[in-house]
Parts: sequence; C-alpha cells; structure tokens
Amino acid sequence: MYPEKNYPVNHLLEFSTRVFLHCGVPKDDAEQAAEVLVAADLWGIDTHGVARLRNYYETLARGFANPRPNIRIIRQMPACAALDGDNGLGLVVGPKANQIAMEKAETIGTGWVSVCHSNHFGIAGYYPWKALAHNLIGWAMTNTTPQVAPLWGAERMLGTNPIAIAFPGYEEPPIIIDMATSTTSYGRIENAIRKAETVPSGWIIDGEGRGTVFPGEMVNGGAIIPLGIDREHGGHKGYCLSAMIDLLCGVLSGANWGPFTPPFPFHLKPPERVVGKGIGHFFGALRIDGFIDPDEFKRRVDEWIHVFRATKPAPETGGPLIPGDPERMARDSRSREGAPLLSSVVKELRELATLVGIPFD
Amino acid sequence: MYPEKNYPVNHLLEFSTRVFLHCGVPKDDAEQAAEVLVAADLWGIDTHGVARLRNYYETLARGFANPRPNIRIIRQMPACAALDGDNGLGLVVGPKANQIAMEKAETIGTGWVSVCHSNHFGIAGYYPWKALAHNLIGWAMTNTTPQVAPLWGAERMLGTNPIAIAFPGYEEPPIIIDMATSTTSYGRIENAIRKAETVPSGWIIDGEGRGTVFPGEMVNGGAIIPLGIDREHGGHKGYCLSAMIDLLCGVLSGANWGPFTPPFPFHLKPPERVVGKGIGHFFGALRIDGFIDPDEFKRRVDEWIHVFRATKPAPETGGPLIPGDPERMARDSRSREGAPLLSSVVKELRELATLVGIPFD
Repeated sequence: MYPEKNYPVNHLLEFSTRVFLHCGVPKDDAEQAAEVLVAADLWGIDTHGVARLRNYYETLARGFANPRPNIRIIRQMPACAALDGDNGLGLVVGPKANQIAMEKAETIGTGWVSVCHSNHFGIAGYYPWKALAHNLIGWAMTNTTPQVAPLWGAERMLGTNPIAIAFPGYEEPPIIIDMATSTTSYGRIENAIRKAETVPSGWIIDGEGRGTVFPGEMVNGGAIIPLGIDREHGGHKGYCLSAMIDLLCGVLSGANWGPFTPPFPFHLKPPERVVGKGIGHFFGALRIDGFIDPDEFKRRVDEWIHVFRATKPAPETGGPLIPGDPERMARDSRSREGAPLLSSVVKELRELATLVGIPFD
Repeated sequence: MYPEKNYPVNHLLEFSTRVFLHCGVPKDDAEQAAEVLVAADLWGIDTHGVARLRNYYETLARGFANPRPNIRIIRQMPACAALDGDNGLGLVVGPKANQIAMEKAETIGTGWVSVCHSNHFGIAGYYPWKALAHNLIGWAMTNTTPQVAPLWGAERMLGTNPIAIAFPGYEEPPIIIDMATSTTSYGRIENAIRKAETVPSGWIIDGEGRGTVFPGEMVNGGAIIPLGIDREHGGHKGYCLSAMIDLLCGVLSGANWGPFTPPFPFHLKPPERVVGKGIGHFFGALRIDGFIDPDEFKRRVDEWIHVFRATKPAPETGGPLIPGDPERMARDSRSREGAPLLSSVVKELRELATLVGIPFD
C-alpha cells in the first residue's frame, strides 16, 4: 500500500500551505493550518494528515468553510472565553483558541476557551504539545461527526470525541496523551472493508444495536461502541467520557452537539436539525508554576516515566509504553526520512495538484 | 445480606458526625466530613459510605490522619492554587479545596486547585454536585491506592483513579458523571471472593500479568485491568486516563503518585518509597456565564437529555441512561425510605458504637 518513496515533511508542509493559499486562506493562517495538518503525518497519525487535505480543499472550494473567518470572542472573563470561529477551518480556529487559553494561563494561572462555529481541528494532541514550550499543561477536546452509540443505544449519537493533554519532562521527552473515547476509529472500520476482513467483536454494532464483526454492518446504519464495550466492562464509562466532551465542546460553546454535529467528509449531508453553530472545541491551559516549581515538576515527571517504564511486563509484551512514545518514535524517524504515504493518498494528492495547478510529484 | 430495616440518612449523618467529633475533629469539619461520607449512602454508592466509617475512625484513632489539620495554600495565582492538606481527612480537605476552586471561578471565571498531603476524599461526584448550586461546572479527580496495571504491565501501578464532572439542567435534573478509569472496582473483586464466584474475563490479571477469572489471583499479587481491557479494544486509553489523573493529582500537586500512593485501609502497610505527601486531588470549577448565558445552557442541557433519552434502544435494554440517573433514583428513594445497610456493615457500626460509646441501634 505504501509507494516506493517517502515524502519529506517540509514538502508536505509547503504543498498544503499552497493549497490553502489557493483557496483564499491568508498566508499566516495557511501556514498554521498546514502545520497542524502535517503534524499528523510527522507523528504517524496518518489518518489525520495530508490524507485529508483533499477534504479540506473541497470544504473551502465549495464554500462549506470560510477561508477568511472573523474569529471573535463572544464572551469572556479573565480565566475563560467563548469563541465564535465564524465557520473557519478548525486548523485555523483551533490554534487561535489555544493561543487565547495559553495567554490567559500565562497571566493568571489558567485559561479555558470554548469554541463554536468551527470545523475539524486536526489531531487533538497538537494543541497541548504547543503549550509545552511555555511551561503550560495544555488540554484540548473536540466533538466530532456522530459515529458512536451510547451504552444501550442502537444508533449513532456521539463522535469519537477525543481528549488530549501533555506534561513536560526534564530530561525525558514529554508525556502526550491523545485519545478517542471509543473502542476504535472509523478509519479502522474502513480499512477492514477495504481488505474484506472482519473486525474484533466489541468494536461495532449493526443498525439494530446487535454486536457484529462485519464492518459493512456498521457503515450501513450501525455504530461504533464506546470505550469499555459493555456494561460489565465499563461501557457506560466510555459513554460518560464522550458525553462530557460533547457537553463541554458542543452544549457549553453554543455549537451543535451529539447526533447533530456536522460531518467532516464534505460529501455527507449535514444533519437535518441544527441546534447550534458548526462543531465545537474546548481548550485549557494550566501554568505549572501556579501549582509547583516547574523544574521540580519536570523532574517528578521524569521519575514517573522511569518508574512506569520499569513496570514488570505482561507476558509476550515489552511492558507498558509511556503515552506519546509511538508518536515520538514516528517523529524521530519521519523528520529524518520523511513520511511514507499510502499509494491511494499519493494518487489523491496528485489529482489535487493537477486541479489547483501546484506541483506535487 | 440486607437487614430487616433501612437507616434514615439523618441518623447516619448524626452518628458519623459524632464519631468524627469523638476523634477530635472540630464541629464544622465533622459535619462536613459526615456530609460527604453519607452522600454515598444516599446516592446508592454503598461501598463509599458508612461502610467505611470504621476505617476513617481507625485512621484518626491511630494517628494516621490529622483531626485538626492546618490546611494551607502553598502557591497560588488568581485562577489556580496548590493546597497542602496537612494530612487531614480527605472528607475535610476535599471540600476546602473545592470551595477555593469555586471562589476563584466566581471571581474570574475558572478556578483549579491541586491538593497534596490528603487522604481518601469520599465519592468524587459529591464535589461537582456542590458546584451546581452556584451555576458552576465542577470537576474532581483523585489518585488512589494502586490496584490497576497499565496496559502491558503485570503489576499494580495506578489507582482506580476516578474523574467526576456535573452539568445543571433547567427543568431536568443535572447530568452527574462520576467514574473510575478501570474496568471494575476492588469492591466487586471482594464481593466475588465473599460469594466464591468467578469474575468476568477482562476484569483482572494474576501476578504474572495473565488474564484470570479467579478473584483470589487478583488479590494475591494480581491487578485490575484498565478501562478498555486490551490493546485491541482501547486498554491503552484507560491507562492514559488513569495516568492523566495520577499526573495531575499526584505529580503536579506534590503528593505521592502511581505505585507509591498510600493505601486507604488502615491495616495495610504504606509503600516503602515516599515520593511526596499523602495522596492528591485535583479540583476545577468553571463559571457557566463566563462561556454562555446560564439559562440558555441549562435549556440546552435539557434538550441534550431529551434527545439522548429518545435514543433507539439496543435489544433487551431500556435504552441509554443519562449519567447520574442511578444515583438520583437511589437518592429519591433513600431520602424517603432510608438507606439499606448490609448486615455486615450494621454489625461493624454497632461494634464501633460500643467502642466510642455513641448509640447506633
């Protein structure tokens, strides 16, 4: 599935920036959007990187998203704000909101920003990663296209609603948590269909709410199961986490929520009922020295990492990872060797290149 | 297992208050501690209520906890603070920290408080529930006795580390989320042992890290599995959540963390290594009108509840619950009819009553 060569990350950055510019996005915003997007390719989260550039392009080209949004604060207090993204790219609105949360935290210790009227904001982990350089603990959450059934439900009511947070180490690399609140992702269901494979039980239900291993049954009116699977194993907890994120990102911000959250793929019809503006995010930032000496904190994080790396391993495993390990390993190799793109992604990017008249290779 | 009669909640409150007073806890603190403790009995979370009073008593009587702590802010900025609980009862330190978070939120929009040098703080849901009356969205987390293995680990490194948050409705009752980040609780393992039953696969591992259904193997050096179970179903996500809570409550606050978190049962030896002070909590509060008009928010929460209640039900279920439903139903019946106590709990409370010379019945 991978082509013969890797693509240097800077090449992907430049191409993405030029595509956004082509769509009328101002220079700074185009560069910012490309940085968030390509962070996914750099970190090995291939589903969220340039594989989605065509969709962002279509969203802009068809007028579904606003290339020059007037992003504004609609309500605020010193330690919080509510933002209206004016239907801009999430890749532009998200970083602005994150910036506001960080500035508030720098000034008075913490900052929390809800966002409505936005669109898909890329990988959630990008945002707390940005906060690390400022000695801040950053948080990011977003609601997303409904694909997940609540426990005991038989239809799609919630997104895979991710939460991300990061903690800096002193000599160790940071701990970066970035996780969806469902058992699996839609991308893995699509992969199984492409390969004509079944999926593990506990991932999906069919349109009647019965567990199934046939991915086509999820796509045709079924749903993904929340983290925890069933009542006995804590499926209500995955549902609760996803609900928490939907209530903060959607309900509190004034965005759409739950089953009414608009889809990311440009060709899907939005839900018929509108209960708010666009999709919603929620950002937070905590100033470490508002709680503890930052060097002391980072040394404690280092020790946490050492202790957890030394955990007695379960059979046939190498022992626990530290959250962020896989992404860091991908970044280390891909920043040197470039990002391998699936041949289907390369094909799509070449088509896009032709369409907009920007060389890709 | 239940005796012939229920105990009025006020009776449990009064008895608990008198036990705390007997141990030298000042009147206001004794009443506060009893309120948190008995909230668990009122809400149907029987494991966390007066069933634990004897343990709190022993902790105080043996000098393991401080009945008259000098709880102090050791660091702060307008939107955050770090608290040292001076080894007080978590049932006293927790409400003080929550109060500080709420006051900060009232003043400038949000407030976040880390706590070290504390002890078990009761049910996490009590704290955001207190915030509801002030039009605040409250958060509470705590680290706890290590009982859970990280994914791919074969030993106890983390607690069942709960997270709680609550959202007020307008006409509907509030949504209250209060969940551990493990597949199950230690209490359910103990129950299975008491009844000589096996437990579902996916709950626990033995001392070698192998999955088992025999609860005795967990107790003898095994561990509970994090929410999500295995790699395929998102066990790394449960581990990440628990790690997040440990890093905020333990590492950031200056408390003990991970495998070094002291145990709650008074008869267990604390871990040999000390990496901080006591156990840790983390509280937050968000002022709703810092983000959106509170009435508008509450009406949106009502509508969220209506839509989720109307979810198509999965086969053989009544459809999804709204987080907080079970606790509210318990509260409604128990506030009228009293709380049923297990005969073993009644026996223990009667023994305690004799010991301290306070009537119980």
